[in-house]
Amino acid sequence: VELLGVAVRWPLVGAPMAGGPSTPALVAAVGDAGGLGFLAGGYLSAETVAAQIAQVRAATDAPFGVNLFVPQPPEVDRRALENYLERLRPAARAAGVELEATWDDDGWTDKLEVLMQDPVPVASFTFGSPPADVVRNLQKAGTKVVVTVTTPLEAQRAAAAGADALGVQGIEAGGHQATFSDRVDPDTGWGLLALVEAVRRRVSVPIVAAGGLMTGAAVAAVLTAGAVAGQIGTALLRCDESGAPDAHKAALADPSFDRTAITRAFSGRRARGLVNDFMRLHPDAPSAYPYINNATRALRRLSAARGDPHGFNLWAGQGFRLARSGPAADVIAALGAELTACGVGVR
Amino acid sequence: VELLGVAVRWPLVGAPMAGGPSTPALVAAVGDAGGLGFLAGGYLSAETVAAQIAQVRAATDAPFGVNLFVPQPPEVDRRALENYLERLRPAARAAGVELEATWDDDGWTDKLEVLMQDPVPVASFTFGSPPADVVRNLQKAGTKVVVTVTTPLEAQRAAAAGADALGVQGIEAGGHQATFSDRVDPDTGWGLLALVEAVRRRVSVPIVAAGGLMTGAAVAAVLTAGAVAGQIGTALLRCDESGAPDAHKAALADPSFDRTAITRAFSGRRARGLVNDFMRLHPDAPSAYPYINNATRALRRLSAARGDPHGFNLWAGQGFRLARSGPAADVIAALGAELTACGVGVR
Repeated sequence: VELLGVAVRWPLVGAPMAGGPSTPALVAAVGDAGGLGFLAGGYLSAETVAAQIAQVRAATDAPFGVNLFVPQPPEVDRRALENYLERLRPAARAAGVELEATWDDDGWTDKLEVLMQDPVPVASFTFGSPPADVVRNLQKAGTKVVVTVTTPLEAQRAAAAGADALGVQGIEAGGHQATFSDRVDPDTGWGLLALVEAVRRRVSVPIVAAGGLMTGAAVAAVLTAGAVAGQIGTALLRCDESGAPDAHKAALADPSFDRTAITRAFSGRRARGLVNDFMRLHPDAPSAYPYINNATRALRRLSAARGDPHGFNLWAGQGFRLARSGPAADVIAALGAELTACGVGVR
Repeated sequence: VELLGVAVRWPLVGAPMAGGPSTPALVAAVGDAGGLGFLAGGYLSAETVAAQIAQVRAATDAPFGVNLFVPQPPEVDRRALENYLERLRPAARAAGVELEATWDDDGWTDKLEVLMQDPVPVASFTFGSPPADVVRNLQKAGTKVVVTVTTPLEAQRAAAAGADALGVQGIEAGGHQATFSDRVDPDTGWGLLALVEAVRRRVSVPIVAAGGLMTGAAVAAVLTAGAVAGQIGTALLRCDESGAPDAHKAALADPSFDRTAITRAFSGRRARGLVNDFMRLHPDAPSAYPYINNATRALRRLSAARGDPHGFNLWAGQGFRLARSGPAADVIAALGAELTACGVGVR
């Protein structure tokens, strides 16, 4: 099947999961198993992105993609941010770490340069649409461009910027919601299937559907609804090749973690994760990304290293309870078999 | 195709839309067109429910169902309720209407008696599961029992009570979320497809999927995911036979209404509707159903009668922009044709 300009066995995209889970090994394993894996360029330095691209290439001949975060405006409600940092301070002091609430552009220009100098088959974007000239330059370099959207309006803007395909992300998805702005647009919270319907009505760009897809039947469902592929993230999180911390992997299968919610507590941007103590403690964190993400990083790393699932972000989609463990190849093969059993033709 | 014990042409259920839209004429039209229509027993007196059942029977031989609301506990945060009524008072005074913030059980016992005395093919329930003995008695009377659920846990409780099928409602749905409790369970907000997957893993009861389904492709998608039927509500709201106020029908197609949100402003219970002035004015209405629903009734009726779309509840699912007008028969026929075009076998 042809997907985003490349040949793959299954209409399955391995979601870019920034912050550790999407290792080069996971991306290569997804590709070898017949899906399209994605490196998660967010949070990494441009050098690390380049190094990970080289690692994937060394591990497999399969095509793959790279995801980047579009920079967010530095303007935030300073007072709300300071109030929140004040609430985080006792925990930071107790742990002996600093709260470094800095802004950064996630190395936007340098990472784009990496993708221009040494093109990959597919680049996807999160938190906004790149400008039309960036899209065009990547396309000229031979890269297909995917923009992640969460509303019909964002889909129109991405299509207008020239995107080759849309990552259509429903409210079910784990990790950050890809909304272009965390603050301005109140038209958030679309369920995946309704969003796919609404986006299809507005634009004719191919759709990769994302959010809560844990089984081949669910992927078959979004294909039936008109998507060209389903994107799986949480479904890969417990895999051997996933770089998620052990405490995160364990929590996904731990009955004491029984639901997800959307929170700004960890990063200052809406993201879905397992409900844990940190999330419960900070129900009203303000919109201030990446400031809060940077501020909480040391605390989160320490908790993850200590194996404390209540002190860091346990990103997870709503269907997390169906996440399988084992080699990624087995998960992809199982999803492929379920997809085939549903009798849905590959488009 | 056999659906909930009755023979229908299409695996399409016409949602019970309480408060006016689901007229006996709409229910009969959906049935005649090959779907399974539902009378909305909520808010009506037992006598009116009995009369509407008779009207549907007089209009068609097609099978149909009746939906009832499970009573809600009378205990609420009195102070929050009073504060909210205080905020509503100026508008009520200006309109010359009273705010009658009363509790009622929606005529629960009398309506059950109607269904026991003169059984209908299917009964569905919203806002909770009826006790197991009520389910059993209805079944003995020859009625199939459907319980509407919004979380995997609610699905387990409904299955344990003996439900023949589950109405699985995603966050996309228009009108009231069917959550068993508006206050206790924070595991709300499931997208439809992820919820269908999660419920299927927990219980083996047949699933009617509801929420945001506007096209045959979307219904085909939920069938692919394992549902036995798709339930459409907003997709019927603009139909000729729909009893929705004209201002409501017009707003669904009016570009100045461009998004939905979930609110407690009108009823004291979470419900999705088009964002209008009343909703924007009262973002923090407390959980106090049916008190607030009763309190705002006169105001809402007056606004609807005046044709003011900003003064009453414009219930709508996320996909409202795709709602078609015309006879319900045409909408059902179009959905059936789209379903067939998707090549999804009827189960």
